[in-house]
Amino acid sequence: MKNKLPIGILGATGMVGQRYIQLLENHLWFEVAWLAASDRSSGKPYGEAAKWRLDTPLPERIARMTVAPAEPAGAPKIIFASIDAAYARELEPLFAAAGCAVVSNSSAFRMAPNVPLVLPEVNADHLHLIEEQSWRKQSGGYIVTNSNCTVMGPVLALKPIQDRFGIEQIFATSMQAVSGAGYPGVASMDILDNVVPYIPNEEEKMEEEMLKLLGTLDGDAVKPLSARMSASCNRVPVVDGHTVSVSIKLGKPATREEILAAWADFRPLAGQDLPTAPDQPVQWAPQPDRPQPRLDRNRGNGMAVTVGRLRPCGVLDWKFTVLSHNTIRGAAGATILNAELLASLGKLS
Amino acid sequence: MKNKLPIGILGATGMVGQRYIQLLENHLWFEVAWLAASDRSSGKPYGEAAKWRLDTPLPERIARMTVAPAEPAGAPKIIFASIDAAYARELEPLFAAAGCAVVSNSSAFRMAPNVPLVLPEVNADHLHLIEEQSWRKQSGGYIVTNSNCTVMGPVLALKPIQDRFGIEQIFATSMQAVSGAGYPGVASMDILDNVVPYIPNEEEKMEEEMLKLLGTLDGDAVKPLSARMSASCNRVPVVDGHTVSVSIKLGKPATREEILAAWADFRPLAGQDLPTAPDQPVQWAPQPDRPQPRLDRNRGNGMAVTVGRLRPCGVLDWKFTVLSHNTIRGAAGATILNAELLASLGKLS
Amino acid sequence: MKNKLPIGILGATGMVGQRYIQLLENHLWFEVAWLAASDRSSGKPYGEAAKWRLDTPLPERIARMTVAPAEPAGAPKIIFASIDAAYARELEPLFAAAGCAVVSNSSAFRMAPNVPLVLPEVNADHLHLIEEQSWRKQSGGYIVTNSNCTVMGPVLALKPIQDRFGIEQIFATSMQAVSGAGYPGVASMDILDNVVPYIPNEEEKMEEEMLKLLGTLDGDAVKPLSARMSASCNRVPVVDGHTVSVSIKLGKPATREEILAAWADFRPLAGQDLPTAPDQPVQWAPQPDRPQPRLDRNRGNGMAVTVGRLRPCGVLDWKFTVLSHNTIRGAAGATILNAELLASLGKLS
Amino acid sequence: MKNKLPIGILGATGMVGQRYIQLLENHLWFEVAWLAASDRSSGKPYGEAAKWRLDTPLPERIARMTVAPAEPAGAPKIIFASIDAAYARELEPLFAAAGCAVVSNSSAFRMAPNVPLVLPEVNADHLHLIEEQSWRKQSGGYIVTNSNCTVMGPVLALKPIQDRFGIEQIFATSMQAVSGAGYPGVASMDILDNVVPYIPNEEEKMEEEMLKLLGTLDGDAVKPLSARMSASCNRVPVVDGHTVSVSIKLGKPATREEILAAWADFRPLAGQDLPTAPDQPVQWAPQPDRPQPRLDRNRGNGMAVTVGRLRPCGVLDWKFTVLSHNTIRGAAGATILNAELLASLGKLS
Repeated sequence: MKNKLPIGILGATGMVGQRYIQLLENHLWFEVAWLAASDRSSGKPYGEAAKWRLDTPLPERIARMTVAPAEPAGAPKIIFASIDAAYARELEPLFAAAGCAVVSNSSAFRMAPNVPLVLPEVNADHLHLIEEQSWRKQSGGYIVTNSNCTVMGPVLALKPIQDRFGIEQIFATSMQAVSGAGYPGVASMDILDNVVPYIPNEEEKMEEEMLKLLGTLDGDAVKPLSARMSASCNRVPVVDGHTVSVSIKLGKPATREEILAAWADFRPLAGQDLPTAPDQPVQWAPQPDRPQPRLDRNRGNGMAVTVGRLRPCGVLDWKFTVLSHNTIRGAAGATILNAELLASLGKLS
Repeated sequence: MKNKLPIGILGATGMVGQRYIQLLENHLWFEVAWLAASDRSSGKPYGEAAKWRLDTPLPERIARMTVAPAEPAGAPKIIFASIDAAYARELEPLFAAAGCAVVSNSSAFRMAPNVPLVLPEVNADHLHLIEEQSWRKQSGGYIVTNSNCTVMGPVLALKPIQDRFGIEQIFATSMQAVSGAGYPGVASMDILDNVVPYIPNEEEKMEEEMLKLLGTLDGDAVKPLSARMSASCNRVPVVDGHTVSVSIKLGKPATREEILAAWADFRPLAGQDLPTAPDQPVQWAPQPDRPQPRLDRNRGNGMAVTVGRLRPCGVLDWKFTVLSHNTIRGAAGATILNAELLASLGKLS
Repeated sequence: MKNKLPIGILGATGMVGQRYIQLLENHLWFEVAWLAASDRSSGKPYGEAAKWRLDTPLPERIARMTVAPAEPAGAPKIIFASIDAAYARELEPLFAAAGCAVVSNSSAFRMAPNVPLVLPEVNADHLHLIEEQSWRKQSGGYIVTNSNCTVMGPVLALKPIQDRFGIEQIFATSMQAVSGAGYPGVASMDILDNVVPYIPNEEEKMEEEMLKLLGTLDGDAVKPLSARMSASCNRVPVVDGHTVSVSIKLGKPATREEILAAWADFRPLAGQDLPTAPDQPVQWAPQPDRPQPRLDRNRGNGMAVTVGRLRPCGVLDWKFTVLSHNTIRGAAGATILNAELLASLGKLS
Repeated sequence: MKNKLPIGILGATGMVGQRYIQLLENHLWFEVAWLAASDRSSGKPYGEAAKWRLDTPLPERIARMTVAPAEPAGAPKIIFASIDAAYARELEPLFAAAGCAVVSNSSAFRMAPNVPLVLPEVNADHLHLIEEQSWRKQSGGYIVTNSNCTVMGPVLALKPIQDRFGIEQIFATSMQAVSGAGYPGVASMDILDNVVPYIPNEEEKMEEEMLKLLGTLDGDAVKPLSARMSASCNRVPVVDGHTVSVSIKLGKPATREEILAAWADFRPLAGQDLPTAPDQPVQWAPQPDRPQPRLDRNRGNGMAVTVGRLRPCGVLDWKFTVLSHNTIRGAAGATILNAELLASLGKLS
């Protein structure tokens, strides 16, 4: 692909916005061409507007770009968005109406009936929903979303199991990194030497998004997975990487070996050559004390999730631990992978 | 009680041993009279043998005491023990055979059929088992144990619910403090910016001890609670305080108000004047983001457990979070409270 | 003292405001009678207005008190203040003009020529400056301040050395706890697995306040200590307790034993019976690896500072480490001790 | 270089040993060919013997290699060593006597008169000392060392200043990461919510190694820098990256701009094409709150050090903060860079 596609970032100064910039540096298909943020940042050089929090240097070219106002005029036709739900509810439709492909990490429209909530390895077929959007029909624009950062790990681990054995009940207890709350986000006084057993709306999002992601496209609508689901969400003193304890009841019996095989065989994007897709999206850690966020979050450049500790559950059937990088696989990388999928399907031109 | 009862501590230099010393300083009934530890420490002044890790000063009198060898000769008749299972299996019977009341935090004999595993607020009647011990018959000595530090919080929170509504299924996911692993215990390289989703044997202990503690005395044996139980144990970067997410299926329906009332009314030791017993062993935190280890672990001088976040569970009936101080309520304080109960029953004289 | 003196707290919802409330619960002389905070909190019950962050429960009586507007009408005659400098500059004079004794932890007036910057053990005689204040002459009101939280530990450790040997040069490098930045203060993303080598204005405050505190009252003015001083301030992932590495050049030679003796003998408030004054304000830790914030910050109920590691310095003469509890000794406790000193001198009636 | 040089690693299972393996994976010149560790590990596959603690996967080829006994028989002629001083004192001479080039991170021989303590950017000429070693004369083998991990950052920052202005006094206060203590190293109970103001022998090493590194080769010996030096070393809860506050007195005056220019111009290895050498070994961070370990430790693949906060010092002349990755720049990377320098000089064949 000789000429890279120009990308605009809505919410460019936030934690996920910074990850977009980091991950798009040297991307094979995409190039950052436009940065927008709140009024306070607009008009400033990005290097001054953003408090860069990543451990790779802010690229010089990006540092010098001027932050644009958050409006479609002057924006490119592909927008990566990660902004607060309240703003997203207002702004993302403006961009879609203006003909933009809004590939969004924001939560505002994830559960809207005609907006696809997509993880390429799990439910690429749900993208069909964009054809139902009025913006698409009028201007060609549309909104596609990826899920909440916490649901990403478990849903990737569960998809191959669901395909082979069915899933009837899901129990998930998360231990989430502070980067998931953005910046400044969690106060250090609240998390040093501490656990906070509550994240507003997180359990609700995790439960409903899980079932939509694992649901089936039924004509022009998604029928959510019919399973009982319970999520408990906790914040722990970890910088990056959400760890989730999962227990499941299956539709039909499976042995340990069969579950391990389901994970090992799970390569739904093989052959599609999407640049950000990991070879092995679900990686098994054989050690008894893994996965761990500090040691496993960067597998597959942060796009692979790691599963471990598969063992029988005394209440349901099986339990295991799953770990994913919350701002890469669970946010910025998810948006980029969605965009790559859309590009490969000819939906970005 | 004019003359305090002399107490010996087996495993005096360890983390729990240090807590015994801290909590017995100024105790109304008991006084530390003898300290024993491994051969390496034996013969040294305690202040030199122990690496004191608590944030109150090591009492001068204790610092000057000489560490005795870990054998019954010269030991007082009441022994608080907290030593590795392998040593406990060998040493605790020697002390019991020598006529000592061994009030133990060690795991070696917790599941032995004729050894009571007791939490005074939960199953004081199980103490009857000591009369079945051969040591008791021969020398008057016996072994009484308290539970693993992780099970303590959930079992206190569940007991009043069990009494009123019955419990059929229990799901518990822990986020445990590093002090639970002793000293040096968890390496800092393993836990800074990290979660370790595995603690050897912890899930097994939690499951079996929970059911024994909630079981019923049936003649000369304890019949464990007949419930399905699943524990998942994780280590997090917290100094003190184990946080546990719990979900339960009840024997009969209960409303939120009924469960809150069960907790509020739970004062099984009222009127017994045990010095270490908290007025309110299970304390409800009404805030949406509590309990938290840093803020709640010291309630009731570390002897009260805090419950919060009671809400319906999508898989079982109800879920909540429970927090307890693992080296006080979950270890040293539990031993002391057991000893106070034994004293009040005339079993320490 | 039968009837306790009523105290008003300006900035009651902040971290230091919370410490005032905690430390005044059961105080022998003082009683919280009035709570004021920003407009946003005014009119609400304190329990609702404040996000209580301490590990002891918020007293019920305080939780029910209504937060008053931050103005003198209705306020008692003794005000403990801990508010941002910008607000303090405006508000504290209003209270002083209205006849209040403003005992302040705010930084606004610490360096004002006629405002005493006082640490009772160090420079109680500087209180004379209040008589120079115009408010004092007109309404009887005045402003007294205590120092920045970081300077408190070093200045207590240096005073007895200065008295005996003189001090010509001071080098101080701090490792400061996050509670010093208030709440929400330091973002967790900035401090987990990290050190921040900069705290705005902190080095300047530390240098100038140190020299004023160690200065001498010369007629109606304080002549600062004539010494060269260099401070470097860093934030580290610690909840409470500022650790400072200090090196000094003395006016005349001193042996290690002489310095230890200076610290041991330093009891300038002995016999004054101030309730919050520790018996031994500067405590020597003989272990090679102390003081440490987690283990030593609560000595003397958080009012004693701990010194350790005294050793020769290759550049100046001696170096050592000093540790103080930044929100008790370094802030709320300092204000209270100043008020106790004022009460004992008859300046609060 | 078509055929890579085979490298043996002595101390392969330790933290630095793991870094050697990580950094040599895909190295242009070197290839890991032999792994040795303690008797306990010898004979086992490396993947089983080592508890891999890095966040990149252990290479499969390495995992399957058998750990050899720590003796010269069977070892390649280039040995990277990082073992405890007591073992190094005994083992490294055996390898040197057997004709090996021992490129060592161990502390045992750093201060030996005829052993070069080298940092390629600072004192490459000191390598001449190897010709004075008896092993060299007899078997061709020799020992070359790199410095302690804490001294590396300051010495790189000071060298260009020394070259232009001279340095007469050095004051350094470190805040060191836990990885510097190896594994298991620092107990989590000692460092969570804490600072430890003491690291055994570290201050001594830092002082004497600094002066040797900045010293001049005088015939067949190194004459250490004649400067007064004072180091204070502290451990903080950081995984990787040592932060050091430095103050200096210069030989002749320098402006801020002149010091910044000295750093910017410092490229002593330019044109030598050593694969591990960073383009810019000392990088200036213009932000007021940098460098920070989490954000800056990976600059130049962990081989560049970051300086910031240059400002006048109230006691000496200038002060600044310097940050280096302690297990890359400060240990494993330093060894590798020394080996690359030796290779480029023809001393490895």
